Amino acid sequence: MKIGIADTTFSRVNMGKIAIDELRKISSIPYERYTVPGIKDLPIAAKKLLEEKGCDLVITLGWVGGTQKDMFSYIVLSMGLVMVQLMTNKHVIDVTIHEDEAEDEKTLMMVAENRVREHVRNAVDLLVNPKRLQKLAGTGQRQGYPDVGPIWK
Amino acid sequence: MKIGIADTTFSRVNMGKIAIDELRKISSIPYERYTVPGIKDLPIAAKKLLEEKGCDLVITLGWVGGTQKDMFSYIVLSMGLVMVQLMTNKHVIDVTIHEDEAEDEKTLMMVAENRVREHVRNAVDLLVNPKRLQKLAGTGQRQGYPDVGPIWK
Amino acid sequence: MKIGIADTTFSRVNMGKIAIDELRKISSIPYERYTVPGIKDLPIAAKKLLEEKGCDLVITLGWVGGTQKDMFSYIVLSMGLVMVQLMTNKHVIDVTIHEDEAEDEKTLMMVAENRVREHVRNAVDLLVNPKRLQKLAGTGQRQGYPDVGPIWK
Amino acid sequence: MKIGIADTTFSRVNMGKIAIDELRKISSIPYERYTVPGIKDLPIAAKKLLEEKGCDLVITLGWVGGTQKDMFSYIVLSMGLVMVQLMTNKHVIDVTIHEDEAEDEKTLMMVAENRVREHVRNAVDLLVNPKRLQKLAGTGQRQGYPDVGPIWK
Amino acid sequence: MKIGIADTTFSRVNMGKIAIDELRKISSIPYERYTVPGIKDLPIAAKKLLEEKGCDLVITLGWVGGTQKDMFSYIVLSMGLVMVQLMTNKHVIDVTIHEDEAEDEKTLMMVAENRVREHVRNAVDLLVNPKRLQKLAGTGQRQGYPDVGPIWK
Repeated sequence: MKIGIADTTFSRVNMGKIAIDELRKISSIPYERYTVPGIKDLPIAAKKLLEEKGCDLVITLGWVGGTQKDMFSYIVLSMGLVMVQLMTNKHVIDVTIHEDEAEDEKTLMMVAENRVREHVRNAVDLLVNPKRLQKLAGTGQRQGYPDVGPIWK
Repeated sequence: MKIGIADTTFSRVNMGKIAIDELRKISSIPYERYTVPGIKDLPIAAKKLLEEKGCDLVITLGWVGGTQKDMFSYIVLSMGLVMVQLMTNKHVIDVTIHEDEAEDEKTLMMVAENRVREHVRNAVDLLVNPKRLQKLAGTGQRQGYPDVGPIWK
Repeated sequence: MKIGIADTTFSRVNMGKIAIDELRKISSIPYERYTVPGIKDLPIAAKKLLEEKGCDLVITLGWVGGTQKDMFSYIVLSMGLVMVQLMTNKHVIDVTIHEDEAEDEKTLMMVAENRVREHVRNAVDLLVNPKRLQKLAGTGQRQGYPDVGPIWK
Repeated sequence: MKIGIADTTFSRVNMGKIAIDELRKISSIPYERYTVPGIKDLPIAAKKLLEEKGCDLVITLGWVGGTQKDMFSYIVLSMGLVMVQLMTNKHVIDVTIHEDEAEDEKTLMMVAENRVREHVRNAVDLLVNPKRLQKLAGTGQRQGYPDVGPIWK
Repeated sequence: MKIGIADTTFSRVNMGKIAIDELRKISSIPYERYTVPGIKDLPIAAKKLLEEKGCDLVITLGWVGGTQKDMFSYIVLSMGLVMVQLMTNKHVIDVTIHEDEAEDEKTLMMVAENRVREHVRNAVDLLVNPKRLQKLAGTGQRQGYPDVGPIWK
């Protein structure tokens, strides 16, 4: 079993390093890292990790700028990652930080770190412990921000 | 015959549990449940249920937040589910709740429950009783809210 | 030769019945009808009619609500139908009524009926009389509303 | 060698006729014409011309109305034509006129005619004289309106 | 090993020439150039370079006008390039200049030249020196404008 980690040089936070740190903390699953320039390069990076590097699941770590053009690139990234999954029958967990989602850099850094760590745990659960996710079904989980919880207990 | 049920930990309502409850009420078709983190993970969950778990139809249960980014994820989900269907030649019934479609949480919960139950019935009809749907053609059926009815009788 | 007709229970007009009526008036081509809940189920319905029911062409009859979410579903429908055609090398004629395109229900009903009937004729021509369409090339044909005609005679 | 020409009955200008006229003027390459109702039918028409009629390149001639719905259809057309090209490894030259891009019908007619003729020349060059396009690289060529030229000579 | 360079006659800067100049400066990898009319022709150009001309990676050089229609073409280009990569399992580095991203022509020319040169270096690194990109992961690299740097050292 192997997990792929794809990140970018565009990102302002070393999300790949955080992902590897978290993966090491919670599991002994080996990983392969692949760094590309920007988010539009992540779909092919994910596919190569799955098909050429023998990964069973990939975590992509994207950083999206604040302009309309960046938002379009985000849609293209998302659509591309869905295609990669449907072509390989494997999960790709898409962790994205939008540069405009926090008011200051310190908060943004914190959101990024938390979101990466929580999604690494989701990814590991999908591979080795899917029952944990089923127990959390419908409970309003969020990544990077506090969980909002269920409407109805 | 088997029905797949894919839901998320992001959802604030346990839509998977409601779907299973309804399925049990109206049929004895076995089911397989698959819980993923969020709506962008639903297309691959649906494809795995259809191709790896032997399901003949999948019901996906999505919960969409109220921001523009959430709306983009919804488009990606919808497009991904169409692709899954075209790749497998099987139906995927997409049940989506938009967090901003009701004014308070109680109404939202009610809409979610009704919509899930009505679509479970649609799904079962598609598999075992397609003639019922044909009788309802053009009658303005809605799921979650009251039917609007036909313009012309 | 066989024509598929896919319609929905969401529609407020029995467009499938009108399509069958028109088809009977102008040809003896057999048809197969497939009713699904809503427009996002039409692409897989069309593909099944073409690949599993032996149809040579499909007419899809969609009814689109007036919200932004409905409009997104319409884009997904359109993109899905293009994919179905490219995967099967067969035509799918997409007849869509937008609930907000007429000011009152009576007009909407009339537009729907006319549009369905005119597109059934287009569909039959594509199959058995493509030369008629070529004669109409560049003449500003419209379906449901009066033709606008060519700019240059 | 053969060129496909796909046009519509929706168009208000007989763009197919203009394309054939230009093709005849500048080359002796045979052509095949295929007329469909509207722009969403052009992707399958192009694919059929390439795969069933033996064409080596297709020119599609689209006319887009001025509403938001027409604009969505244009996006679907464009995306569909990219897919056709990637599935066949052949060029499809997309000539589109937007009904709202000129102030009066006479200008629109002129833009349409010029754009069709210039793109027919591009299409022929792609097939038999790709070096001419390479000489024009980065020179700000436009079709239908005057070229804007390069920023830097 | 060979790199493909796809550019357009629509561009107002000879981006292909700049790319070749940079490639020559930093490597001896052979290249193949393919010039097409506009950005919507770039996906098929990239696929042909990869599949028919034996290229291992393609750099596409796109120039996008300032209207909403141009922006839609840009989305279609981006989505098409993702598809090309997923179909071939090879990288396509997309270098795009938006005509409205600089205030005057001189700045735009400078941005275009810098962006092309920096992405040529990224492309070469992806092929022969992927470790350099990994060292730059999360450091806020930008192409055409100054790097913004990491939030956290």
